[in-house]
Amino acid sequence: MFEKVEVDESYVRFSKDRLHRFYVDILTALSVPEEDARIVADNLIIADLRGVESHGAQRLKRYVKAIEKNAVNLRPNIRIERESKVHALLDGDEGLGQPVSYKAMKMAIDKAKENLFGMVGVRNSNHFGIAGHYSLMAVDEELIGISMTTTRPLVTPTWGIEKVIGTNPIAIGAPIEDMPPFLLDMATSVVSTGKFELYRRKDKPIPEGWGVDRYGEITTDPNEVLSEGAELPLGGIGEILGGHKGYGLSLVVDILSGVLTNATWSKWVKNTDEKNSNVGHMFIAINVEAFMPLEEFKRRMKEMIMDIKKSKAKEGKKIWYPGEKGALTAETRLKIGIPIYHKVLEEINEIAEKVGVEKLE
Amino acid sequence: MFEKVEVDESYVRFSKDRLHRFYVDILTALSVPEEDARIVADNLIIADLRGVESHGAQRLKRYVKAIEKNAVNLRPNIRIERESKVHALLDGDEGLGQPVSYKAMKMAIDKAKENLFGMVGVRNSNHFGIAGHYSLMAVDEELIGISMTTTRPLVTPTWGIEKVIGTNPIAIGAPIEDMPPFLLDMATSVVSTGKFELYRRKDKPIPEGWGVDRYGEITTDPNEVLSEGAELPLGGIGEILGGHKGYGLSLVVDILSGVLTNATWSKWVKNTDEKNSNVGHMFIAINVEAFMPLEEFKRRMKEMIMDIKKSKAKEGKKIWYPGEKGALTAETRLKIGIPIYHKVLEEINEIAEKVGVEKLE
Repeated sequence: MFEKVEVDESYVRFSKDRLHRFYVDILTALSVPEEDARIVADNLIIADLRGVESHGAQRLKRYVKAIEKNAVNLRPNIRIERESKVHALLDGDEGLGQPVSYKAMKMAIDKAKENLFGMVGVRNSNHFGIAGHYSLMAVDEELIGISMTTTRPLVTPTWGIEKVIGTNPIAIGAPIEDMPPFLLDMATSVVSTGKFELYRRKDKPIPEGWGVDRYGEITTDPNEVLSEGAELPLGGIGEILGGHKGYGLSLVVDILSGVLTNATWSKWVKNTDEKNSNVGHMFIAINVEAFMPLEEFKRRMKEMIMDIKKSKAKEGKKIWYPGEKGALTAETRLKIGIPIYHKVLEEINEIAEKVGVEKLE
Repeated sequence: MFEKVEVDESYVRFSKDRLHRFYVDILTALSVPEEDARIVADNLIIADLRGVESHGAQRLKRYVKAIEKNAVNLRPNIRIERESKVHALLDGDEGLGQPVSYKAMKMAIDKAKENLFGMVGVRNSNHFGIAGHYSLMAVDEELIGISMTTTRPLVTPTWGIEKVIGTNPIAIGAPIEDMPPFLLDMATSVVSTGKFELYRRKDKPIPEGWGVDRYGEITTDPNEVLSEGAELPLGGIGEILGGHKGYGLSLVVDILSGVLTNATWSKWVKNTDEKNSNVGHMFIAINVEAFMPLEEFKRRMKEMIMDIKKSKAKEGKKIWYPGEKGALTAETRLKIGIPIYHKVLEEINEIAEKVGVEKLE
């Protein structure tokens, strides 16, 4: 979550509440039940607030397209297929990814509170938005929260040139005493797909090492990566800097959220605007009180984080912990508003106009 | 585990059984109980067999030194401090890391078999050897196995120059139908510390991107990294290629195996040849039958892996899955013997001579 894109003059700022209402209005106008619309809006707002531009306002268009194409079931019958005191498996019935994910993490949280541990998988789902949303739900309940999901195949395995694995993000959160929570929310590829789209949108070359062209060679053209080329796993090309580790982590997410859930693995995951995209997710909540009193855990977390933050940084640099920049960005944006890039603003206002919702101005 | 160093003429090969006996003889000669010595030997052999040279024979010297310095408790009173149906916390009483880790993973396995899930932490331990050993124990029982450990602080966080985080490895294994198991066994740094030692031993420069010098600049001198510099987290220097992700993953391992276990985090972990090194570990076993019949899971694993293996590779390259090369190397080495680098052979034979054990010849 550290990779940032400059906020320049071509942004317009809106309050969190205004944006949230805008998202809910658009989704309900498209027949999404209000309760579900609110969860999707929450997810977009968390991304908008924390500076994860790739998963905020710019995502709305995709969800709207999927709904308009009838690729998403807006009245899903979410069923519990398997359940024990510590786990469950949900069938999302091809509904939006966020509501079923919210329900699944809620179940994991309840199980962790009662039985120390909860692990809830979801199949037949769709794009669930920003993974950190669900991990933070667990953190809000003073638990350790882990969320992950399969994605469309956009990444190539080590030594490959074909897109057959996912960006497969994983988010891990934990509470810290007196400080914003720890939150590592990362694609297992070098960067998330949204970043490539962002660079394409801004007509900027991508840094060397993010993706390869159709011949498997490093390219700086985001269009080439998004078309015939492929994204690279964390660690980059080949094995020398650990590309096989990012590739392996992507498969771990596939195993837990795709194979084990009876969904499918990233190779066969379809875009959310296609029917049966069959995205799979896994949500885990761990009750720290299994191991020590909560307050002790949070104090120890603080000590660890402070040990690292106090260590020597390179000149002109500062050491951040995962989740810190996002929390700071959110604090600022709650005060001065969330910046929406002008091209994205045009897009979402076009949607508003089409569905008869008040535009953002 | 894909990063390989060439096997050249300066290696001598020994059978697995001969090496195992050699390790057990040396350890028992140093008063390690035979049962514990066997577990340590198993761990070294797994590394030797699978081609993880950094964690095989070259490690023996370290364990011997720790024992000779009385830094390790050879008659630990391993206590169960907390326990439920799905978790436990063990106090390793400053014993060798391998025996308590073996016991902890055994407990996690038993819990997963009975209650679908097992999570067992260990504190007051020492270096536990190759992480994959424990994950493979779970895989042998047809479970998903996860193992991780804190390590000494040898890595610098993103934008830092001080060694304050660990190489903190994590190993995740899962069974596959008719094929060697999936096993991702990775340091969360670009490479494991053993790799730097290997390059130093061989007087070879390290690749650019593995570590930094005392000023936080990229260096190719392994001595500089091991002395005043620092190793880099997976993703490398800065944030542009995801160094903050490797840094975050290292902290996740610290949280689960250091903070939550009531051990300590990597910043304060001492070398195994010092007293109270207080290494912490976490072992997790997941029963796939919580979600689907075992045979179905294994078949699905095979389908996923084959989908990836069959995808297009760069010319002259082949796509491997995590654990495949290690299994193939083991198969070969079981037939033709395990290669021991001549300098390592000298070292371990010196130990043999000193403790009155038959040398390797």
